[in-house]
Amino acid sequence: MTWLETLITKGPQEGYDLAIKLSRMAVKLTQPDEHVREKLRLDYVNNADSLTLASQVVAVNFQTIAQANNYWR
Amino acid sequence: MTWLETLITKGPQEGYDLAIKLSRMAVKLTQPDEHVREKLRLDYVNNADSLTLASQVVAVNFQTIAQANNYWR
Amino acid sequence: MTWLETLITKGPQEGYDLAIKLSRMAVKLTQPDEHVREKLRLDYVNNADSLTLASQVVAVNFQTIAQANNYWR
Amino acid sequence: MTWLETLITKGPQEGYDLAIKLSRMAVKLTQPDEHVREKLRLDYVNNADSLTLASQVVAVNFQTIAQANNYWR
Amino acid sequence: MTWLETLITKGPQEGYDLAIKLSRMAVKLTQPDEHVREKLRLDYVNNADSLTLASQVVAVNFQTIAQANNYWR
Amino acid sequence: MTWLETLITKGPQEGYDLAIKLSRMAVKLTQPDEHVREKLRLDYVNNADSLTLASQVVAVNFQTIAQANNYWR
Repeated sequence: MTWLETLITKGPQEGYDLAIKLSRMAVKLTQPDEHVREKLRLDYVNNADSLTLASQVVAVNFQTIAQANNYWR
Repeated sequence: MTWLETLITKGPQEGYDLAIKLSRMAVKLTQPDEHVREKLRLDYVNNADSLTLASQVVAVNFQTIAQANNYWR
Repeated sequence: MTWLETLITKGPQEGYDLAIKLSRMAVKLTQPDEHVREKLRLDYVNNADSLTLASQVVAVNFQTIAQANNYWR
Repeated sequence: MTWLETLITKGPQEGYDLAIKLSRMAVKLTQPDEHVREKLRLDYVNNADSLTLASQVVAVNFQTIAQANNYWR
Repeated sequence: MTWLETLITKGPQEGYDLAIKLSRMAVKLTQPDEHVREKLRLDYVNNADSLTLASQVVAVNFQTIAQANNYWR
Repeated sequence: MTWLETLITKGPQEGYDLAIKLSRMAVKLTQPDEHVREKLRLDYVNNADSLTLASQVVAVNFQTIAQANNYWR
């Protein structure tokens, strides 16, 4: 399955969406069972620190994508 | 909804504000229920480690924005 | 054993796969016992924060690989 | 209130002080109540892992500031 | 004792080995007692999150070494 | 008190020592009471995850110092 063809996006907001996609894909590839993931999702979307940890992953991926796009300057 | 048009800001302080916005947006997109977010907010703003974790996300996003702005040199 | 000959990949998705491989290799080299690793795997693939922590490692490794490949631009 | 006019500092030590200021500002903007912050401070300055987590934020901010200053070379 | 003469390695795999060495050295310099370290090692090699945390340190050090080697391109 | 005059070091090992110094300084400036720090030190040098967390801070600071020194190439 092809899910990541390029890091280049039209603008920063699309780049941010891609950062979220990249962050979730690591989880998906580690825990392929959608049913389990759905159950775990209920845990972490109701826990402040879990959400902050997830934001941290998005931030690192967004940095990579921003670099790839020369910061959409 | 357009919420991120550019990473370019007038100065470092506006860049810092944008870093905070980016950090919160990841949480917002993961937990869209404002009512739940408000409840979680009460947890983490009263916990030292939660606040430090949140600062870490801001720091990574601020680094990205500072790079985008050539550090406002 | 040779397991890492180059950081250069055909595209970003292969780069992402390599990032996952790098992330797991650190664990493998620290805990060489496959039996123990398999048991630990059952723990962390059923815990949301463990999966997020693992995503964080993948994100850092992916950033390195993306830089190596000049972001596949 | 203007609190961040530039990332440029005279030398690395002033850069380190600014990194600490940036790190604390994220907390301040998230928890504006000084009384609560003072109480939380008593918690984390007496906990080794809390102090290490705070050092991590300072390290990321210091990296940004060092880049901005071309490492004071 | 000299233990780090250069960040330059023959290839990425040797770079990865050096990243592991750097990661362990911080622990060694903080806890010089080999006996204690051996006991702690038994804890963390049997805990999934501890292994992931350790992978994170390796990932950051590997990024530094990859940059030093111009990604072995 | 002047404690950081330059990020430039003779070689990578001196750079690593400086990275450790930077990491400890954030703790020192946050918890100035040496007596408390000594007590906390006993906690974290006997805990595997605390040592790993501390290594993470050293790794980020070492990356900054390595960049400053053009990786001692």
